[in-house]
Amino acid sequence: MAAKYVFINNQLFLEQDAKIGFSDLAIQRGYGIFDYLKVIDNRPIFIEDHLNRFFNSAKDMYLEVMLTREQLKTAVRELVHINKTPTCGIKLLLTGGYSEDGYAMGTPNLIISQYPLNMEEENEFEMGLKLVTYNHQRQLPYIKTIDYLQAVRLRNFMQENNADDVLYHNNGAVTECPRANFFMVTGNEVITQKENILKGITRSKILDFKIEGYTVIEKDFSIADLTGIKEAFISSTTKYAYPVSIIDGKMIGDGKIGPVTKQIREQLFKLTYA
Amino acid sequence: MAAKYVFINNQLFLEQDAKIGFSDLAIQRGYGIFDYLKVIDNRPIFIEDHLNRFFNSAKDMYLEVMLTREQLKTAVRELVHINKTPTCGIKLLLTGGYSEDGYAMGTPNLIISQYPLNMEEENEFEMGLKLVTYNHQRQLPYIKTIDYLQAVRLRNFMQENNADDVLYHNNGAVTECPRANFFMVTGNEVITQKENILKGITRSKILDFKIEGYTVIEKDFSIADLTGIKEAFISSTTKYAYPVSIIDGKMIGDGKIGPVTKQIREQLFKLTYA
Repeated sequence: MAAKYVFINNQLFLEQDAKIGFSDLAIQRGYGIFDYLKVIDNRPIFIEDHLNRFFNSAKDMYLEVMLTREQLKTAVRELVHINKTPTCGIKLLLTGGYSEDGYAMGTPNLIISQYPLNMEEENEFEMGLKLVTYNHQRQLPYIKTIDYLQAVRLRNFMQENNADDVLYHNNGAVTECPRANFFMVTGNEVITQKENILKGITRSKILDFKIEGYTVIEKDFSIADLTGIKEAFISSTTKYAYPVSIIDGKMIGDGKIGPVTKQIREQLFKLTYA
Repeated sequence: MAAKYVFINNQLFLEQDAKIGFSDLAIQRGYGIFDYLKVIDNRPIFIEDHLNRFFNSAKDMYLEVMLTREQLKTAVRELVHINKTPTCGIKLLLTGGYSEDGYAMGTPNLIISQYPLNMEEENEFEMGLKLVTYNHQRQLPYIKTIDYLQAVRLRNFMQENNADDVLYHNNGAVTECPRANFFMVTGNEVITQKENILKGITRSKILDFKIEGYTVIEKDFSIADLTGIKEAFISSTTKYAYPVSIIDGKMIGDGKIGPVTKQIREQLFKLTYA
């Protein structure tokens, strides 16, 4: 594999040399925010939306971003170029910075790193995802913090429940997956949770879609409301709209990708490759 | 200042060279656990309790500790010796390790670092701490994870409310401070919360104390129950028992350290310097 570079505070490092001092508040106190976007054929997708959210997350957590919006865009382009990965995922991560006493905030460290991107252009599925519900309300849900304590910890729980991912609920109110939003499709509505979730950028695109015969709407719904739904899917930057076949062992529809999910998936591809 | 060393995975590094690769799950996902103990005149205080909790936290988060209990003790002694700090605080921190995809766990990184310890031997206070209550339930409260997102973020809120620290409550049920347990003293009871808190080691020592005329007890209590209490204090490794003078702007007793807090504080000193 070719050498891969990472930006730390706008300096390039070889991946193996890209390090952060132990006193950083991300390490000491789990304090940081990030965003993740995809780049396809050198085109950063929805980068304005991602940067809006990145700057908002930083502001909400009282973290200063050392680069301007334009400098961040330049850094993303430069990283894609130097790593020779015209199609990839890019993560912008901002930490609480070096803290002398391990608690007070320092000057944030900015890490820009690159990940392989699995192409998701196919539209046929033997099966969609299997989800298992779990009662947990993420803290500061509207801010894209680095807190995935529960999600990472629940990997064993997922395996024990023969699931691919977790679907969080807040005492019965369905919210989101750890890294994706959740949608359900009824006879005439495409519904996603309105409250206590991270408002995904793919989710926001879907909310603007016109689907014939359906209202696309954000509102509160519960686990009980999942009974009898026609389709379910999750949305994220890497998954687009991805069908869900099983929730808590119960099949959704016939378990295959449904027509609404398929249509939304295709519209997302169009938007991405426009 | 003399050179200061840090252990990373049982290797000594100068503090400025003690670094962790950017792909560690602490940085990427806020995933890690820790413990903090004090060393006084080369004697690690309550180290067995701290190591018990450290190993329990690690187990609960599916993290393997690369060193045995004895090796950890040796490392603590060695660090105190090489840094020439017979009296100090020691932090053991275990991360989720390097993750290729930024999500799956790797082999944990173990960081052992040393902090200055403020001596807290005085027993007279002009004033105790000013606390401001805040509705937040810590996730995984029984595990000493590195998650202090809310606590670090609330520093501005504290300042705006002229407070020294936050007192969390869970929809009215008083729980704990971000880094300390909370006690209230009524006419005949010394009470600390029983549920949804980190069970501090200083707290556990206090629960074993005999206080004449008082029952020392763990049980559920609410913000409303704070009205008319005689004394309040917080407990932690660095603060021992530390008086609280004001909660949400309201004075507790006459605002000075009360006789029960004083007595508990003295008993903790005795136990520490025994």
